[in-house]
Amino acid sequence: MKIAIYPGTFDPVTNGHIDIINRAALIFDKVIIAVATNPQKKPLFSVAERMDMLAHVISNTPNIEIDRIDGLVVDYAMAKKAHAVIRGLRAVSDFEFELQMALVNRKLCEELITVFLMPHEKYSYLNSGIVKELATFGGNINCFVPEYVLNKIKEKLHDH
Amino acid sequence: MKIAIYPGTFDPVTNGHIDIINRAALIFDKVIIAVATNPQKKPLFSVAERMDMLAHVISNTPNIEIDRIDGLVVDYAMAKKAHAVIRGLRAVSDFEFELQMALVNRKLCEELITVFLMPHEKYSYLNSGIVKELATFGGNINCFVPEYVLNKIKEKLHDH
Amino acid sequence: MKIAIYPGTFDPVTNGHIDIINRAALIFDKVIIAVATNPQKKPLFSVAERMDMLAHVISNTPNIEIDRIDGLVVDYAMAKKAHAVIRGLRAVSDFEFELQMALVNRKLCEELITVFLMPHEKYSYLNSGIVKELATFGGNINCFVPEYVLNKIKEKLHDH
Amino acid sequence: MKIAIYPGTFDPVTNGHIDIINRAALIFDKVIIAVATNPQKKPLFSVAERMDMLAHVISNTPNIEIDRIDGLVVDYAMAKKAHAVIRGLRAVSDFEFELQMALVNRKLCEELITVFLMPHEKYSYLNSGIVKELATFGGNINCFVPEYVLNKIKEKLHDH
Amino acid sequence: MKIAIYPGTFDPVTNGHIDIINRAALIFDKVIIAVATNPQKKPLFSVAERMDMLAHVISNTPNIEIDRIDGLVVDYAMAKKAHAVIRGLRAVSDFEFELQMALVNRKLCEELITVFLMPHEKYSYLNSGIVKELATFGGNINCFVPEYVLNKIKEKLHDH
Amino acid sequence: MKIAIYPGTFDPVTNGHIDIINRAALIFDKVIIAVATNPQKKPLFSVAERMDMLAHVISNTPNIEIDRIDGLVVDYAMAKKAHAVIRGLRAVSDFEFELQMALVNRKLCEELITVFLMPHEKYSYLNSGIVKELATFGGNINCFVPEYVLNKIKEKLHDH
Repeated sequence: MKIAIYPGTFDPVTNGHIDIINRAALIFDKVIIAVATNPQKKPLFSVAERMDMLAHVISNTPNIEIDRIDGLVVDYAMAKKAHAVIRGLRAVSDFEFELQMALVNRKLCEELITVFLMPHEKYSYLNSGIVKELATFGGNINCFVPEYVLNKIKEKLHDH
Repeated sequence: MKIAIYPGTFDPVTNGHIDIINRAALIFDKVIIAVATNPQKKPLFSVAERMDMLAHVISNTPNIEIDRIDGLVVDYAMAKKAHAVIRGLRAVSDFEFELQMALVNRKLCEELITVFLMPHEKYSYLNSGIVKELATFGGNINCFVPEYVLNKIKEKLHDH
Repeated sequence: MKIAIYPGTFDPVTNGHIDIINRAALIFDKVIIAVATNPQKKPLFSVAERMDMLAHVISNTPNIEIDRIDGLVVDYAMAKKAHAVIRGLRAVSDFEFELQMALVNRKLCEELITVFLMPHEKYSYLNSGIVKELATFGGNINCFVPEYVLNKIKEKLHDH
Repeated sequence: MKIAIYPGTFDPVTNGHIDIINRAALIFDKVIIAVATNPQKKPLFSVAERMDMLAHVISNTPNIEIDRIDGLVVDYAMAKKAHAVIRGLRAVSDFEFELQMALVNRKLCEELITVFLMPHEKYSYLNSGIVKELATFGGNINCFVPEYVLNKIKEKLHDH
Repeated sequence: MKIAIYPGTFDPVTNGHIDIINRAALIFDKVIIAVATNPQKKPLFSVAERMDMLAHVISNTPNIEIDRIDGLVVDYAMAKKAHAVIRGLRAVSDFEFELQMALVNRKLCEELITVFLMPHEKYSYLNSGIVKELATFGGNINCFVPEYVLNKIKEKLHDH
Repeated sequence: MKIAIYPGTFDPVTNGHIDIINRAALIFDKVIIAVATNPQKKPLFSVAERMDMLAHVISNTPNIEIDRIDGLVVDYAMAKKAHAVIRGLRAVSDFEFELQMALVNRKLCEELITVFLMPHEKYSYLNSGIVKELATFGGNINCFVPEYVLNKIKEKLHDH
């Protein structure tokens, strides 16, 4: 059984992430979405909230799991006996950073293979930061996140 | 069973290609190396010679096959019931071209997923064109191609 | 009256070109599509055929003209009293080449301003070369070019 | 009448910005410089100071206006009935970020066209951050900003 | 005598820096490693600690000196009668930033030549930030820094 | 004595090349301009003509030599006991190609160091191909090449 992990902050999950997850689930027997705690990034949502949003919006297929990750991706991947790490590639600037991370991870664990997938071009501009910035200024983010996430963002920004 | 095809000209196969093939064979149940005929590129070796070199140098694992491809990659992939197309990513210039091909292929066949793998950094500069150019000028290409391929290049250049 | 020229080979015009033309026509009072003869590129279609296809597929708005161009873009632009040259930007590799051309043109004519427009992201992978290559291999190019152009490509490839 | 807005932080305006403004004023009937408040960027100068510097250094042409902008660029542009948003392109890293913003803005407002202009190559390295950093270390910034701005930077740094 | 300075934060020095230093020492008569104090970057190590680590790990060749630098690189270089500034180039994103710095430095001092060297490809992914991040999470950094630096990082992180 | 070679086709030498040569001559004791024969590139000028133009336009300094090169750069460099190979970097696309060549050359000869220099930004768009293309269409190339080269191009194009 081929297992892949898809690590990220998912603060919050966007339609671009969902697109990558669905593609990954077609080529691996199991995909584990690994939500990084990332306290230094000061996420808008807690890990529990981010995992809850993922649980509501990903396809209800048995080969996708959601978990949290506190340490290094390679340590987590080895503990889960994963063969691959999934990363999305949207732009040249992504590419260089991702290449660097993949090279470092390979140094730390030679057997772990980084697999790059490309989201649909209609999501090529999309990331969680832009979604939050648009929402702060009252921009329409309907086509960037699922409805459940949209409502959670509104609640959170209202609370602030 | 998850099947991936790895299309290319392989004129000739290099250590960078072999590195990608071995990685792909770890995450897919079957990998089909699809040698493109590419007459407009005026290859140095015939398709038969390129397939012969591949057969000699790839790992003797049962889940790797070698075939030729004459038409579009998407048509071949659909005929083989492949889930994924494997492509190597070495540099930013690769990245843009590969992104374009992946987007076009997705337009032609939505279900076919392009999977990008990164060769070992010691092969990040390597392609078949440089190997042939170095060989023409008598440069040492021992660390770029397997010995069998090295000898075939020497024979071919001697014939010319 | 603000006049812009949009130079290119248009061999043949694609949906990406049409998208750029329509955007340009919204911000300039007149847009002149300048079909470069480009004999060294060995176009598939003659200049007359390329101009004919453009005439059939662009919006029937009075502020768009079609012309041919045989010399330097800056000389043509000065003769037409144009203020701007329109160029489409799809990718980083485009960007560097276009930047270079814009810098050279500015050296030749300081007053002529290069204006970069971005096609819709669904055309970000598209160029005339890919359309012709796909058509050669029997690929479906319905969503890349208008029907009139599609038929002209089929006729041309049938003749060859 | 074709109206364009040129949004930015202008903290402070540099010779590169002025170059873009002058080019834009040649191809549009009206150019509105829209100074973004951007409190999260912690600007060195207040919005009023940034608008004052712009008012002193831009050409005294009737078709250039200076305004402030507090919300989203697309909302401001629609309120002003603008046809285009002007952005300067200096480098590949600019290009990717600007492409992303242009794509997001198009999603939010299909009719608003982003127009990219290229500053003179002598300003291709220039941004407000470098000017401020050089000034902090006593570097000579005479050729990067107009004299009026130079004096304001000196006053501000002296106050700190 | 041709003198070059190699400015940087070196927080801490990595095997990639050492590789660049050794190459520079082969082509210049004297190389001065100039440790920038950079308080705004909040370095993990003090300038004295960073200079101490450099002193322990660089080759014991008489043509390499270690110094600190508090102001602008160009002012320091002129004071030292240096002909060149050494910079390492690892990736496209490096390239654009370094190009910008080189252009600004040339504006400030026309005679000072920026010389770009490329580290060994096995260090192409390496920077001080990644080393510190890996060490924080208990990752193995043996192949990224010399043993002396490794121990200093462990001590420092233990203290925190 | 530190020796550097500056290999290239120089078909013909441009002001950008001359700028790089002058910078290199300031940091190396001897600079050898190595004119590559490059028959597969079908140069406009013969090697003898290209060397003649170089001899006329480079500064009359004793530490610059002009030679021809028929084989691999590394073999030539070793024969000349050179420490470094000089390459100009103008753009990101240059960067990737040059990085690749530098990595290959290092594989072939570990001791040979590739040194990248950046031409003045006013030559950042300039290469021999553009100069020839402009000249073909009657464009003004006065600011791109020295007068001697300008006249040789005119003669050559007149002959054709």
